[in-house]
Amino acid sequence: MTPKIGFVGLGRMGANMARRLKDCGLTVSAVYDLHTAAADALAAELGALACHSLTEVTAASEVIITVVTDDQAMRAIFAATGDTLLKGAEGRTFINCATVSPAVHLEVEAAAEKAGAHALEGCMASSITQARDGSLYLMLGGKPQVFESMRPVLEKLSTNMRYVGASGEAAKVKALVNMVMNSNTAALAEGLGLASSLGLDLGMIREVFSQTGAASRVLVTDGEDMQNRDHSCYFSASHAAKDSGIALALAHAAGLHLPVAVATKAQYDQMVALGLGELDKSGVAELTFPGRGPASP
Amino acid sequence: MTPKIGFVGLGRMGANMARRLKDCGLTVSAVYDLHTAAADALAAELGALACHSLTEVTAASEVIITVVTDDQAMRAIFAATGDTLLKGAEGRTFINCATVSPAVHLEVEAAAEKAGAHALEGCMASSITQARDGSLYLMLGGKPQVFESMRPVLEKLSTNMRYVGASGEAAKVKALVNMVMNSNTAALAEGLGLASSLGLDLGMIREVFSQTGAASRVLVTDGEDMQNRDHSCYFSASHAAKDSGIALALAHAAGLHLPVAVATKAQYDQMVALGLGELDKSGVAELTFPGRGPASP
Repeated sequence: MTPKIGFVGLGRMGANMARRLKDCGLTVSAVYDLHTAAADALAAELGALACHSLTEVTAASEVIITVVTDDQAMRAIFAATGDTLLKGAEGRTFINCATVSPAVHLEVEAAAEKAGAHALEGCMASSITQARDGSLYLMLGGKPQVFESMRPVLEKLSTNMRYVGASGEAAKVKALVNMVMNSNTAALAEGLGLASSLGLDLGMIREVFSQTGAASRVLVTDGEDMQNRDHSCYFSASHAAKDSGIALALAHAAGLHLPVAVATKAQYDQMVALGLGELDKSGVAELTFPGRGPASP
Repeated sequence: MTPKIGFVGLGRMGANMARRLKDCGLTVSAVYDLHTAAADALAAELGALACHSLTEVTAASEVIITVVTDDQAMRAIFAATGDTLLKGAEGRTFINCATVSPAVHLEVEAAAEKAGAHALEGCMASSITQARDGSLYLMLGGKPQVFESMRPVLEKLSTNMRYVGASGEAAKVKALVNMVMNSNTAALAEGLGLASSLGLDLGMIREVFSQTGAASRVLVTDGEDMQNRDHSCYFSASHAAKDSGIALALAHAAGLHLPVAVATKAQYDQMVALGLGELDKSGVAELTFPGRGPASP
């Protein structure tokens, strides 16, 4: 018997994880999004219940996978009162996949346990394609027995699972991954932008970068997009700003000064301020290439 | 007939390139360094002439490979008067491998041609091991016919040559490579430093980084060294500061604002100011790990 699985937050990650589980023969019982049209459409596609309240999702599901945007949204769906996933949640397990502050995972776990439910954090260090084909790099945090009980579901989503430790620990690792990724991305955009201003062939430059100390994963994923201004969104600039912010809050609390991450976050904040926050993170190149953004001569 | 090859600048790059050419059966005719003891020792090792003036190198060689530290040193060895490589240089070819400002390569080429000689820039995007075993990633700039004439020598040094264009163009590419590499390195040091302050297992973190968007060449070359504080020098912090500075001067001239590179250069400048300039670039982790450097709580 596979569990009835509900989804809360039907952005491209959540929706594609739901499609993946359905493809694998699991039961997607209920879907919910603040944009009710998104819930209605996905419910029709997957044969699930289109919920217009959180309480309905909990009622219709044994496992609830949440993929919301930020700390505030996480706290809202697990609120103590009003329309909340915690109402009637006894026996349910929540798998929370948003990238949020580590402390929020601890709060949610405590609230879930108080309601007789379980919580697991499932931090995803991958993007939409991997969500759709079940190859997410997934870092899990929470009680070991909760992790073990969710294996049959998690294994359909991820070919590469790593149990990191208690709740909140995976969020820390994820924040670090994204902090470094964002800095590498912003640095690459600077290198390619300067190359462009020097009149160098960007295809040649990317090839030289790939064979030297400038090589990086983001060179592969974002380099050509920066050159071609193809900023279709896989991981948005506003998410990049948020995740670097989570990491910098941890650094601040630890008394560490991380100037490259600070400069990187400022670039993504500037994108948001300029109305470019929904571009892919590769869009940071709009700030560094001559003739594109406000920083050009 | 292979040419008689002289070397000027016998740091670990220059000395190991000379050893490599000797191993390949080429004739290392003359060696020179401001530290005369280094020249004497290498001359004895390779059976070359230990020169105590630049003019002697030119007299004893047909091809002269220079690997000096910076713009000032390059201008000094190619000075118009005094002890200079240009005296009696007619017919010689200079291969200049230091990472210097693009404009300096153009100056040197013009001066060499005025003296009836040729100049080629040979920018190396590799380190000591590759110098020793002839697997340098070498970017060449200069006149095509000069490049072609030097192929028999260059092919012994590099399994991976790329002719980039006119003199100065390779230096631009090299400055870009190192600018991005330095930023990736400083970003990695921040990620690992914060991980350390959060009590996370750094081996696990490096493994997660390697499988996600945080992956980079410097993670492979420098990550473990940052963790273990092994900063034996392959590419020094002071060189990192210099090369980021060359790139930022080009950016400034182009009217581009590159804040991540600026923050990175400031980190390497700080290392120099703290007397850590001769550590490897991985030593930037001394500024970002809790309990190590001046930025710790």
